[in-house]
Amino acid sequence: MTVPTAGLLLIGDEILSGRTKDKNLGYIADYLTALGIDLKEARVVADDENDIIAAVNALRSRYTYVFTTGGIGPTHDDITADAIAKAFGVKIDYDPRGVAILEAHYQPGQLNEARMRMARIPEGAELIENPVSKAPGFRLGGVFVMAGVPKIMQAMMDQLASRLSRGSAIITATVTAYIAEGDLAQPLKEIQDRYPEVTIGSYPFEESGKFGANLVLRSRNDGKIAAAERDVQNMVAKLKSSGKVKTWS
Amino acid sequence: MTVPTAGLLLIGDEILSGRTKDKNLGYIADYLTALGIDLKEARVVADDENDIIAAVNALRSRYTYVFTTGGIGPTHDDITADAIAKAFGVKIDYDPRGVAILEAHYQPGQLNEARMRMARIPEGAELIENPVSKAPGFRLGGVFVMAGVPKIMQAMMDQLASRLSRGSAIITATVTAYIAEGDLAQPLKEIQDRYPEVTIGSYPFEESGKFGANLVLRSRNDGKIAAAERDVQNMVAKLKSSGKVKTWS
Repeated sequence: MTVPTAGLLLIGDEILSGRTKDKNLGYIADYLTALGIDLKEARVVADDENDIIAAVNALRSRYTYVFTTGGIGPTHDDITADAIAKAFGVKIDYDPRGVAILEAHYQPGQLNEARMRMARIPEGAELIENPVSKAPGFRLGGVFVMAGVPKIMQAMMDQLASRLSRGSAIITATVTAYIAEGDLAQPLKEIQDRYPEVTIGSYPFEESGKFGANLVLRSRNDGKIAAAERDVQNMVAKLKSSGKVKTWS
Repeated sequence: MTVPTAGLLLIGDEILSGRTKDKNLGYIADYLTALGIDLKEARVVADDENDIIAAVNALRSRYTYVFTTGGIGPTHDDITADAIAKAFGVKIDYDPRGVAILEAHYQPGQLNEARMRMARIPEGAELIENPVSKAPGFRLGGVFVMAGVPKIMQAMMDQLASRLSRGSAIITATVTAYIAEGDLAQPLKEIQDRYPEVTIGSYPFEESGKFGANLVLRSRNDGKIAAAERDVQNMVAKLKSSGKVKTWS
């Protein structure tokens, strides 16, 4: 079974200036992992047409899916829809489906030219429903274009999830070792070498003076991950009882 | 005066799987903004040599500086130093300066092969001091390689900051309008068109049922930003007193 892959593109000056602290990367990473889709790369670019086009084209040539967030509102700095149309070389115009959604939502007189910009959708795109504030996102090929406001983006993910091919579930196991990373690195590498189907990461921590590492195993093969987890647990127990390394528990 | 630019590369499977929620992007964005350096792009890649090499080379060909975080510890998944050496086409080996730092830090018998990996530094690199846990980062050309643990990365930024060219300060002004974005988009665009030296962003919010947008002006020209800020304030006041748009304050 082929595992679907994904790239993520976060669009917005405010993330690169530090003014807004991004919360979408972590959310989308968790969401895709739960669907068995491998997020392989993420990029953050400014509200700059050329930068958006280059990034979208680089990511869509490489991954099954691309998700974008940001730049689909009514203001002058919202240029994502036009940039995506250019990246695909397709036309963009007021979409009758988008116009109908906005007309149903706004009071008479409220649907001005700026808000109408939110009905600009590239030719050939499917809409993504926005249950929060109505202005839709869209899908063009494997590219899913969403709002940047976390609450709206999250609602759009729920709307589009059913259109994604899922991979088999990724199984994760964590072994917490109160041993310095440098003391378990060598035996851990030997376990990694024995289990190429399992990806083992080591994430060091310090909590109130105690040092250690979370050893995280990830795999799609439940037999292999169970065996590797057992080996990691044995390795940690052996190190602790050896008396040769410092432990904090 | 030329403004220095920067690209940021966050390295680590754990960020893309969602297991670790990145905190380095926002911190580095703020830090560079304070130095007058324009962060133009950020990327997140896995602990994969080819992905790291491709991203570093893409970013360093484009920006004055590249900052990387992650992958310089003692475990098998720490492959950043070797990848950077390959990206530059230079040799990498145990660096006498790095070895001396580690020898001074560890007790006899503690400096095993895994920990020695942290003294592997590409040829021609300068070291970046690590006041927290000693194992150094390094600079090669315009690329600054730092740890991924936020506390260590932050200490390394403080160590390397004096080596960076600074740009003139970026001045920011924020006007908070309790008016829906769609109602101020058109007059805001007209102000943006009058002040090409000022970048104006609109960031909508909802707080306990009140809607509005933070209108953020950024520029290196203090006269222009002051004038544009006045225009934005007047625009908001005029909309409020017009009675034609809904306001929440």
